[in-house]
Amino acid sequence: MILNEKQLPLRAWRGLAASVAALLVWDVLVTVLYLNATTHFEAIDIQFTLFGTVIALFVGFMVNAAYGRWWEARTLWGQVVNSSRSLARQALVLLDEDVPGARPGLAAQVVRNQVAYVHVLRTALRGQPLPEEAGTFLGPDRLAHVERATNRQTAVLLDTDRLLSEAHRRGMVGELSRLELEAALVALTDAQGGLERIKNTPLPVQYRFLPRFFSRLFCVILPFAVVEDLGWLTPLGSGLVGLMFLLAVQIGDQLANPFADGVYDVPMTTISRTVEIDLTQMLGDEPPRPVEPVAEVLY
Amino acid sequence: MILNEKQLPLRAWRGLAASVAALLVWDVLVTVLYLNATTHFEAIDIQFTLFGTVIALFVGFMVNAAYGRWWEARTLWGQVVNSSRSLARQALVLLDEDVPGARPGLAAQVVRNQVAYVHVLRTALRGQPLPEEAGTFLGPDRLAHVERATNRQTAVLLDTDRLLSEAHRRGMVGELSRLELEAALVALTDAQGGLERIKNTPLPVQYRFLPRFFSRLFCVILPFAVVEDLGWLTPLGSGLVGLMFLLAVQIGDQLANPFADGVYDVPMTTISRTVEIDLTQMLGDEPPRPVEPVAEVLY
Amino acid sequence: MILNEKQLPLRAWRGLAASVAALLVWDVLVTVLYLNATTHFEAIDIQFTLFGTVIALFVGFMVNAAYGRWWEARTLWGQVVNSSRSLARQALVLLDEDVPGARPGLAAQVVRNQVAYVHVLRTALRGQPLPEEAGTFLGPDRLAHVERATNRQTAVLLDTDRLLSEAHRRGMVGELSRLELEAALVALTDAQGGLERIKNTPLPVQYRFLPRFFSRLFCVILPFAVVEDLGWLTPLGSGLVGLMFLLAVQIGDQLANPFADGVYDVPMTTISRTVEIDLTQMLGDEPPRPVEPVAEVLY
Amino acid sequence: MILNEKQLPLRAWRGLAASVAALLVWDVLVTVLYLNATTHFEAIDIQFTLFGTVIALFVGFMVNAAYGRWWEARTLWGQVVNSSRSLARQALVLLDEDVPGARPGLAAQVVRNQVAYVHVLRTALRGQPLPEEAGTFLGPDRLAHVERATNRQTAVLLDTDRLLSEAHRRGMVGELSRLELEAALVALTDAQGGLERIKNTPLPVQYRFLPRFFSRLFCVILPFAVVEDLGWLTPLGSGLVGLMFLLAVQIGDQLANPFADGVYDVPMTTISRTVEIDLTQMLGDEPPRPVEPVAEVLY
Amino acid sequence: MILNEKQLPLRAWRGLAASVAALLVWDVLVTVLYLNATTHFEAIDIQFTLFGTVIALFVGFMVNAAYGRWWEARTLWGQVVNSSRSLARQALVLLDEDVPGARPGLAAQVVRNQVAYVHVLRTALRGQPLPEEAGTFLGPDRLAHVERATNRQTAVLLDTDRLLSEAHRRGMVGELSRLELEAALVALTDAQGGLERIKNTPLPVQYRFLPRFFSRLFCVILPFAVVEDLGWLTPLGSGLVGLMFLLAVQIGDQLANPFADGVYDVPMTTISRTVEIDLTQMLGDEPPRPVEPVAEVLY
Repeated sequence: MILNEKQLPLRAWRGLAASVAALLVWDVLVTVLYLNATTHFEAIDIQFTLFGTVIALFVGFMVNAAYGRWWEARTLWGQVVNSSRSLARQALVLLDEDVPGARPGLAAQVVRNQVAYVHVLRTALRGQPLPEEAGTFLGPDRLAHVERATNRQTAVLLDTDRLLSEAHRRGMVGELSRLELEAALVALTDAQGGLERIKNTPLPVQYRFLPRFFSRLFCVILPFAVVEDLGWLTPLGSGLVGLMFLLAVQIGDQLANPFADGVYDVPMTTISRTVEIDLTQMLGDEPPRPVEPVAEVLY
Repeated sequence: MILNEKQLPLRAWRGLAASVAALLVWDVLVTVLYLNATTHFEAIDIQFTLFGTVIALFVGFMVNAAYGRWWEARTLWGQVVNSSRSLARQALVLLDEDVPGARPGLAAQVVRNQVAYVHVLRTALRGQPLPEEAGTFLGPDRLAHVERATNRQTAVLLDTDRLLSEAHRRGMVGELSRLELEAALVALTDAQGGLERIKNTPLPVQYRFLPRFFSRLFCVILPFAVVEDLGWLTPLGSGLVGLMFLLAVQIGDQLANPFADGVYDVPMTTISRTVEIDLTQMLGDEPPRPVEPVAEVLY
Repeated sequence: MILNEKQLPLRAWRGLAASVAALLVWDVLVTVLYLNATTHFEAIDIQFTLFGTVIALFVGFMVNAAYGRWWEARTLWGQVVNSSRSLARQALVLLDEDVPGARPGLAAQVVRNQVAYVHVLRTALRGQPLPEEAGTFLGPDRLAHVERATNRQTAVLLDTDRLLSEAHRRGMVGELSRLELEAALVALTDAQGGLERIKNTPLPVQYRFLPRFFSRLFCVILPFAVVEDLGWLTPLGSGLVGLMFLLAVQIGDQLANPFADGVYDVPMTTISRTVEIDLTQMLGDEPPRPVEPVAEVLY
Repeated sequence: MILNEKQLPLRAWRGLAASVAALLVWDVLVTVLYLNATTHFEAIDIQFTLFGTVIALFVGFMVNAAYGRWWEARTLWGQVVNSSRSLARQALVLLDEDVPGARPGLAAQVVRNQVAYVHVLRTALRGQPLPEEAGTFLGPDRLAHVERATNRQTAVLLDTDRLLSEAHRRGMVGELSRLELEAALVALTDAQGGLERIKNTPLPVQYRFLPRFFSRLFCVILPFAVVEDLGWLTPLGSGLVGLMFLLAVQIGDQLANPFADGVYDVPMTTISRTVEIDLTQMLGDEPPRPVEPVAEVLY
Repeated sequence: MILNEKQLPLRAWRGLAASVAALLVWDVLVTVLYLNATTHFEAIDIQFTLFGTVIALFVGFMVNAAYGRWWEARTLWGQVVNSSRSLARQALVLLDEDVPGARPGLAAQVVRNQVAYVHVLRTALRGQPLPEEAGTFLGPDRLAHVERATNRQTAVLLDTDRLLSEAHRRGMVGELSRLELEAALVALTDAQGGLERIKNTPLPVQYRFLPRFFSRLFCVILPFAVVEDLGWLTPLGSGLVGLMFLLAVQIGDQLANPFADGVYDVPMTTISRTVEIDLTQMLGDEPPRPVEPVAEVLY
């Protein structure tokens, strides 16, 4: 996630460099050929207004759908944060370690499991290996168990549920309060399912192909339509309009995949570190430092 | 669901082949006739900009509504996945098979029922016969019972509810925890009802007819409007604009029916296999392999 | 609800017949007068592009709002189906007729009440008298009681609640499970309230008047604007654009009132029959046949 | 709320009378001056198409946001109706007046409090004094208590909660059922908070000022742009387009404030009377008559 | 939040003063140079209609997304108000201070904690130091504890949860009612998480940069396109269109950051004072005065 709210950073332009260069070369080529050879294109521009408006409309729909995905992904991560905090707060308050038969440290392990959960979920969504934090907060035994599972984040939740079940068996928590803690696990399962849905279901290819293909086609045709009116200014005018379309399509492409580990990502590393800070502080431990932005980008 | 996020696969064009061929033949015909007979159409193009913009607006609304249906269907399947996981996790943790009078294997049967449920729901939405997995996970007696019902997926849920009721009678689960499990069944009933709603309620015919009819009409009239300006380029210009409208309408048609078992489907086979993998792994059994894409398409 | 997803049925055009005939007569009249009298209108068409685009925008907003109402009505009926199934499933499983003091058949009456409820709700939304099914499933005593109420669907729910209260008094159900059943009644009350809200709150008159009035006005003015360019083709060109606007406005009008008992209705007869089939089958009774479409329309 | 779904009532035009008159005078003035003085404006109209389209777009966004507020307000009132019915139904069924120590009439007072609540909420949202019904249903003691509070509707809910607390202390209701009743109070608090949010948070001034200011500016400039083409028809053409913009802005203004006690209001008097009818009928009392529309308007 | 619903206050224009001045100077410069030097630009204006329409579309999407953020922030604060009222009402009614072992004043402290919570949340979102009210309502000990935490609002909630836990231990509240109070804390955690999400996740930079950059570019190019048609009126015509775009972009910028402590803010000071008034009145204390608007602005 780019922190600078006003300036598009240089690297955002880089992805467009090849397209823009090709666009400019083409615009200059058409202009030079036209002004030498005096071919006649004059009356076709009105049709191009229609063409451009329709493409803009579809690009707009695509960008909106992509933004919807990105914001839903961010909101679901927000739900993960909320439920992590609620689960930790309730585990520390509702699990009674003073009853006879209680296992000391069980509540703390529930909280540690939850810290591991957010880190495991983050790396799973990015297709990365298990993170270092998984070992730190789960311990070697639980880690080995989690590593064997296909869906590792689900395995962590199942382990937390077993901890709660043990607490209930030991009399550390009543049935009602145990179900209240269970509700946080259901909320986490729902948020995780939503994130995996966004991860595994790309924006329909037609939704992405149509704007990209016709935007590029439009860039190819545009200089023919404006060269008579604009003359030597054609590369400038045609290039600007083309750039606008290419930029808009790029925005849609970037927002549509919010877990790509790129600069436009939902900042999952930062979010899971925030959860780690909040939860370790609840345990009374020394929290880690927040994630620092790298060149104005939070990952 | 097409996995390739960038290229529209060849088969997507195939559905349009007849329309596009007819469109091109027509455009060429109009052009040839015009350039021989010198009929006069010059001043009508502005009106066509209006006509085209209005059609584009309605096509856009239709595509958006269709995308809304497709995404809602996907989200509801996500809810089925979430509730299946929660139900299985809770069944394994909350049902106590160590009390006297407990029936061993009851919790596992709840989980197996749920695997059968997602497969039965999938085939019901596609109008297919009961899947092989129904027999595997339900066993012959339950299968026979389910086959007699009109709504077979509801029958599986009712059977699961009877299992929970038996568990409660045998003292394997308290009333509170039993209701927590019941909540997952209510969530599944809600998601299933939503999926059946989308299945049984097509996008209003007017919403689909209006864009399709007027898009085609527009394609018919367009060459007359541009032939004076474009001359021999008419089939190219008119064809591209027409293609764009035909493609957009096709997108809407495909997304509006997300259970058609076509390449643009919600990938229900894949999703129900994912549930099967997760739940059999929770049981400690050997999970099946994930569904492999066929020519970049997941079903 | 029209089942045919591709063709607008003949009767849909019928409602437009008078408007379209008037439109064509007017267009022909303007054309004939112009081509005889050679009045001069040439330069006003650009303004009409603006006028038409703005009207199209407002028609689009109106159609979208109307579609939103129609789909919300359909979704709320889906909620009625879901909660009916959950209530019936839970009544059959949670109410224990084997305890001493139990009243046999009480659970079945809860299910029958629910069948009656959906039929009563359907006729109330359509402003029709009590349906035959009310008597069949409620029996004469309950029916007489329900007939006296102002809001009859609420009266059926209150009666169901009294049955649950009796079951609780007789020890057939614990307090917790009784509240779980109560939750289904709250969900039904919410869905019913939503349906009555859509029924009793028309789309704001301004939202409907503005598009209709200006669309017609546009149809009146359009031939003057295009007659110079189109000549004898004016009735065709002007008529097509006018038809598009009239059709779009008609779509909005029809979708805005989803309980009008017309061909574009939410198919409430079909939906309540589906509930009747599912619930009688749960009781082990012979279910009725599904509603058959009449000339491709489900009511 | 205007009941007539087709005709915009006369009084809706009245609010526009001054603006429309000014608009017409201005259009006539420009036309007369132009046709006498033969100033030259011919080529500026294309720019005005852009100007007009952009303004239409912003007016559309504003109208949509205003409609969203109006419909949310209506939906929240629907929630008040639903929760009032659920609370009343549950109070009558769950509070047991036959136990020793029960206070007879307590359940009925909960229902009466709820009738008073909706009337108090209605007048609070309209900035009116306490309604007559408050005294009728609360009785003098409770009324005096409520009158002293800053937020009177919250005070009624707090009083209902105290009644439920008393019922619990007297053994008339178990802890579980008492919390079920509490849930209805939480739902009412949420709906009330939403209504107060809409009341206290106007649509952002920029959202309203921009469309209004530029629409009027557009009306001022429009005749200069079209007078050359339209000649003596200028006041008609320019006036119609101007009227359309002024009407659209007026719709947005009216829908944005749904509690203004005007003809476009959410019909809160009617809704609270409906609740009064339903709840008094549940008590077995004689219900009042429904609110009659005044000149096709429900308040 | 600006209270005046009709007039954009003077200070709103101030932010635009520099841009508008630059725009006017540029427009005048182009006009003067053109009318002296008679450069030829005539035929390029149609392309500019397309350019302007496309920019308007993207500005519109951005403004809509920004409005969505602003309204979501306001709605989440509404949720904070609702849950604060519910928590306070339930604490006063459900916590029984008459049982032996009860700690008098515990319920009042829960309410006071909640008042402190909303003030702490407000200042945290604005990046301000702890407010005076935190000390008043928390007392010195709790304040010191809260000050040490990274996320101070979470620390207040955790402290409230400890109070509830103590009440439960002392027998002042049953397990069920304690969980009902817990539900309000979960709702507050969710609303707080949503507010922090909006605070920490700016609108994607591309969404903001694209409209701003191209709007300004459009303002630069516009006079060249219209100077031939408008002549000496160019600064007026070009300036008005440019002003409209600059204003629209400014609206988006302001609404996108609803916690900036500016005049377009969500009025958090006013909202948290409202909660303070309602809750102190529930305690029977003297409530503070509502926040007064400063020059028609509520903060």
